[in-house]
Amino acid sequence: MTQYDAVIVGAGIIGLATAYHIKQQNPQEKILIIDKMSTAGQGNTARSAGMFRNFFYSPTNLELVRTSTGFYESIPNLKIEWIRYLWLFHEEGYKRIEPVLKEMEDKGLEFKLFDDYDLTRMLKINTKVTEDEEARMMGLADVSKAILVMKAGSIDVDYLVGFYESQFKEQGGEIRYKTKAERIIVEPVEPSGMPGEPYLWQKAKATGVKTDKGSIKAKKTIIAAGAWSPSILDEVGIETHIRPIKRQIFIVKADTPELKELLHVKGLNQEGCMPFTILTNGLYFKAVPGEEAFWLSYGDEFPRAFKLEDDPRAEEYFYRYGINFVVPKYFPQFKKAKLFSSFAGLYAKNTLDGQPVVFEENGIIVVGGTSGSGIMKADAVGRIAAALYAGQEYATLFGGEKFKVSDLGLEERKVEPEKLII
Amino acid sequence: MTQYDAVIVGAGIIGLATAYHIKQQNPQEKILIIDKMSTAGQGNTARSAGMFRNFFYSPTNLELVRTSTGFYESIPNLKIEWIRYLWLFHEEGYKRIEPVLKEMEDKGLEFKLFDDYDLTRMLKINTKVTEDEEARMMGLADVSKAILVMKAGSIDVDYLVGFYESQFKEQGGEIRYKTKAERIIVEPVEPSGMPGEPYLWQKAKATGVKTDKGSIKAKKTIIAAGAWSPSILDEVGIETHIRPIKRQIFIVKADTPELKELLHVKGLNQEGCMPFTILTNGLYFKAVPGEEAFWLSYGDEFPRAFKLEDDPRAEEYFYRYGINFVVPKYFPQFKKAKLFSSFAGLYAKNTLDGQPVVFEENGIIVVGGTSGSGIMKADAVGRIAAALYAGQEYATLFGGEKFKVSDLGLEERKVEPEKLII
Repeated sequence: MTQYDAVIVGAGIIGLATAYHIKQQNPQEKILIIDKMSTAGQGNTARSAGMFRNFFYSPTNLELVRTSTGFYESIPNLKIEWIRYLWLFHEEGYKRIEPVLKEMEDKGLEFKLFDDYDLTRMLKINTKVTEDEEARMMGLADVSKAILVMKAGSIDVDYLVGFYESQFKEQGGEIRYKTKAERIIVEPVEPSGMPGEPYLWQKAKATGVKTDKGSIKAKKTIIAAGAWSPSILDEVGIETHIRPIKRQIFIVKADTPELKELLHVKGLNQEGCMPFTILTNGLYFKAVPGEEAFWLSYGDEFPRAFKLEDDPRAEEYFYRYGINFVVPKYFPQFKKAKLFSSFAGLYAKNTLDGQPVVFEENGIIVVGGTSGSGIMKADAVGRIAAALYAGQEYATLFGGEKFKVSDLGLEERKVEPEKLII
Repeated sequence: MTQYDAVIVGAGIIGLATAYHIKQQNPQEKILIIDKMSTAGQGNTARSAGMFRNFFYSPTNLELVRTSTGFYESIPNLKIEWIRYLWLFHEEGYKRIEPVLKEMEDKGLEFKLFDDYDLTRMLKINTKVTEDEEARMMGLADVSKAILVMKAGSIDVDYLVGFYESQFKEQGGEIRYKTKAERIIVEPVEPSGMPGEPYLWQKAKATGVKTDKGSIKAKKTIIAAGAWSPSILDEVGIETHIRPIKRQIFIVKADTPELKELLHVKGLNQEGCMPFTILTNGLYFKAVPGEEAFWLSYGDEFPRAFKLEDDPRAEEYFYRYGINFVVPKYFPQFKKAKLFSSFAGLYAKNTLDGQPVVFEENGIIVVGGTSGSGIMKADAVGRIAAALYAGQEYATLFGGEKFKVSDLGLEERKVEPEKLII
């Protein structure tokens, strides 16, 4: 049996970025990725909306995103569309967020402010929803302001996945697909050779992974399996603070003149399309001009379950009696929209603070908990995991910035709380 | 259908203490406990070693235990045996703990210090285990010191459970046994009466529990189900930070002259028996003179799984090739000990800091995470939960001490870390 230096469970964006940076730093080492899917990025990475924004309140989040997207910009042929974010606020919500935005402006984070008049004029949006009795009964609030976040857009996730995968392989990294991690192998640090080890007086550590295709031995076992990570780590009693939660995306085609016009609205970005739009209450839609479509979603919390599913499905009622009831109140263009298709994924929610975790326990490195922003943070998180792997105190992020590895750990965790949550 | 003021899921010690104190404070209210078992305290409460110690470093832990055991002492006929704790240390371990002990002494927490000579003389213990080649190979260390914790002992758990249960019922509280909570009922805060509620624009909250015997509606739903709490709350996406972990107790009869002598050793407590004894590394045994037996246990961590089981069983190998290998090295009296019986339970480990949680979200009060010290803290935790229920900022613990309710919450949690972990 080959002994690897590191085995990485998960060929999603986080596992790939981690593997790539480990291999970059340690070209002589034998690094293996395993994934239960048949190709890279086919789990929840493939089910992402693929958006990013260099616009966070938390310096931690901002640094992770800014350096990651900086790196992505350096990748030849990776399509990044700077379609921007349009973020709507009702009066109360804007009042709450105003001091936060002021601070962000002072830090040089660019946005443009619009009022309800601008929005009506530019987008034919209905800002005064409370004039509609149904909307009033639903408790919807009038839109009073919006901000257009400038440094934000969408990334070609498939291409990014392919980049990390091919670069990793080119450097000599190995990947085994259709290989499912069944459990972490645990052995004594100082084996006695007796059967039944580890005994209670022995210190134990992970020495690889048992898979459905046999055992893989490695000096370090790295779990970067996203929503699946807690189920693997529960088996050895390691708390990840990651919980899987379903997220759904509903696709409607822009097949009416009103929707087409909205999709291709000019003046808000260089792409000449509608920005990624966040309505109040975690409801958003993304313009996808290449598909002549909009993707709509709502990130619900209570009472949405923490639940692991291998093939989560979108729930049609969630669109029909939810999203489809609310969005047209603000954007009448969606009144005649017809559901074209849908999909769902699980995001790996960090229930401590919504920010990623990178820590090591008993020979196991855990990387994840990116809480729906895995793609936009993957490069930085991968570098931090690679630094932890190498025993470095600081990771060097893209552009040369230093990041203290233990800041994303559990013992000495130090992350600034995020005040701008979609 | 009866509408209750509160439904409490779990008739273990925490659920009972919570229900008792809520009913005490609100005698007019309709309070119901449900439990899947056929009587009170039959889950993990029944699987406890039933020990307590007024000896913690964390002021939080100390206050919870001191006031709880103070209340227990006031209960007529409740048998409390002050058998004390004997805590053994190897040289390194003692050096680490010495400053902590000094601080505790300064606070007036009583203990007696013994050296290896005292221990050998009093207990015929083998302190110099490293003279034995096998013990040396096992990495066991010589015992250099021990402390005898004075205010510590065992409680008659069944009696305590019966006390809370009967008092709760006498005050008019209701209990339904053999009633399993299947899921929390969630409804809109402001119902519209339309089918399919709650919709995404509605704020939702818990309004009771669906059980295998039908639905129970209540203004407040209180989850005090110990190791089962996370599985109920996962279904509605509430993070408890509680994980179930197996703990095992192995019973050996004191049926040799050596074990009998050790069991009934004089001079260490008023009961004239061996104190509850903690060897290095989380290994302990309890003298049970009433059964002419010792209970032995080892609280293992990595790689012990977080796993929910309705009927966890003790693993015989864990005794034979674990506990039974180590204990006789120090206590030769156990050399010929024969395993008589065993049992296992699940403790509700709080993975944030090992201390209890009491918080409310969406009409649900969560009480638990007592991490193996539920019985010794139950009364205080019950009072704190009752204060949260009543919307009070401070709970009044036994003896009149005040405790800030939000200190055990998640948002403004403030607990002192524990430095003395068994």
